[in-house]
Amino acid sequence: MAGLFITLEGGDGSGKSTQSALLAEWLEAQGRTVVTTREPGGTDLGVELRNIILHRRGYIAPRAEALLYAADRAHHIATKVRPALERGEIVLQDRYLDSSVAYQGAGRVLDSGEIRELSLWAAEGLLPHLTILLDLDEGVGRARLDERTTYDRLEEEENDFHARVRAAYLDLARAEPERFLVLDASEPIATLTAAIRERVTALL
Amino acid sequence: MAGLFITLEGGDGSGKSTQSALLAEWLEAQGRTVVTTREPGGTDLGVELRNIILHRRGYIAPRAEALLYAADRAHHIATKVRPALERGEIVLQDRYLDSSVAYQGAGRVLDSGEIRELSLWAAEGLLPHLTILLDLDEGVGRARLDERTTYDRLEEEENDFHARVRAAYLDLARAEPERFLVLDASEPIATLTAAIRERVTALL
Repeated sequence: MAGLFITLEGGDGSGKSTQSALLAEWLEAQGRTVVTTREPGGTDLGVELRNIILHRRGYIAPRAEALLYAADRAHHIATKVRPALERGEIVLQDRYLDSSVAYQGAGRVLDSGEIRELSLWAAEGLLPHLTILLDLDEGVGRARLDERTTYDRLEEEENDFHARVRAAYLDLARAEPERFLVLDASEPIATLTAAIRERVTALL
Repeated sequence: MAGLFITLEGGDGSGKSTQSALLAEWLEAQGRTVVTTREPGGTDLGVELRNIILHRRGYIAPRAEALLYAADRAHHIATKVRPALERGEIVLQDRYLDSSVAYQGAGRVLDSGEIRELSLWAAEGLLPHLTILLDLDEGVGRARLDERTTYDRLEEEENDFHARVRAAYLDLARAEPERFLVLDASEPIATLTAAIRERVTALL
């Protein structure tokens, strides 16, 4: 496979979209063909599945939800990502299997190892060449959004969930240091961009 | 789990619906509570997924399709079948994991063992107490429908596919003789009904 597969991971608001856009622009200026995509919802079928998962009223059984995410992934990788990589293009993808493992594992209902296996079966084993983890202390993220220092119970639970997601991401990065570039997302945008360009340059 | 989980398997036109209806009627006449259901499409979510799988225009990647069937199964078993079994009811289900294994395996794109594992993960390991296989020679079924004796290439391929499905079903039955009741679906309806009642009586 001639192309380069780069995924961006991290909590909402950690700056994935900003860094993805800056990286795409920089690569295109060098004459590279870049496909910017995301999961879930990177294909027409994926948009339908994303609507079911995120906007459907009523309960969805946890394993059904995990399988719908995996179906989105299977279709996206088979019809969009692999063909682009085979054409030698660079794929920049917002969220991939590490999101599934970190979020679904942090939800404490499903086993992380099983979620990883399911994702890899869906994607026929495709792993990114590079995964950029924009790591952000959820407390810091929150404090930026509002200045209250006390939280109600639901907000504390949410904070606790996001702390587990963050810890899960860092565990994944420690387990595969070659694949991950972990960055402190509280650094200035230009600092992060420079670190990402350096690592991508080494891969090209 | 106090209830009884019975699945019906076999090709289209093998008489599953007829035998399911007759069995439900007979069990209800004995004061049993019977839930008659099917896969795919046994829940509201399942109907949406069934529409995507069967009626959506355009290609769906094979693994995505398998994962959508599995998502339907996960939701159906968790929200409809298990609760009914826990209430001590009898579930009569048209098609279950053996359909997935026989049809997707016969399609020769995906591995049967992986499809079985995926189904069992979706259903958290739930196997039927009894699976009634209505076995029918596809040639006989076809000959009943029309009297031509020559087929064009597509029809021969279809016949070949259905012959592989039938062989896969019979392999599954041989591997789990305790779970399966294999019946010759070319027998008269009353003969089949009697054989099914005898086996179900032994289970009650």
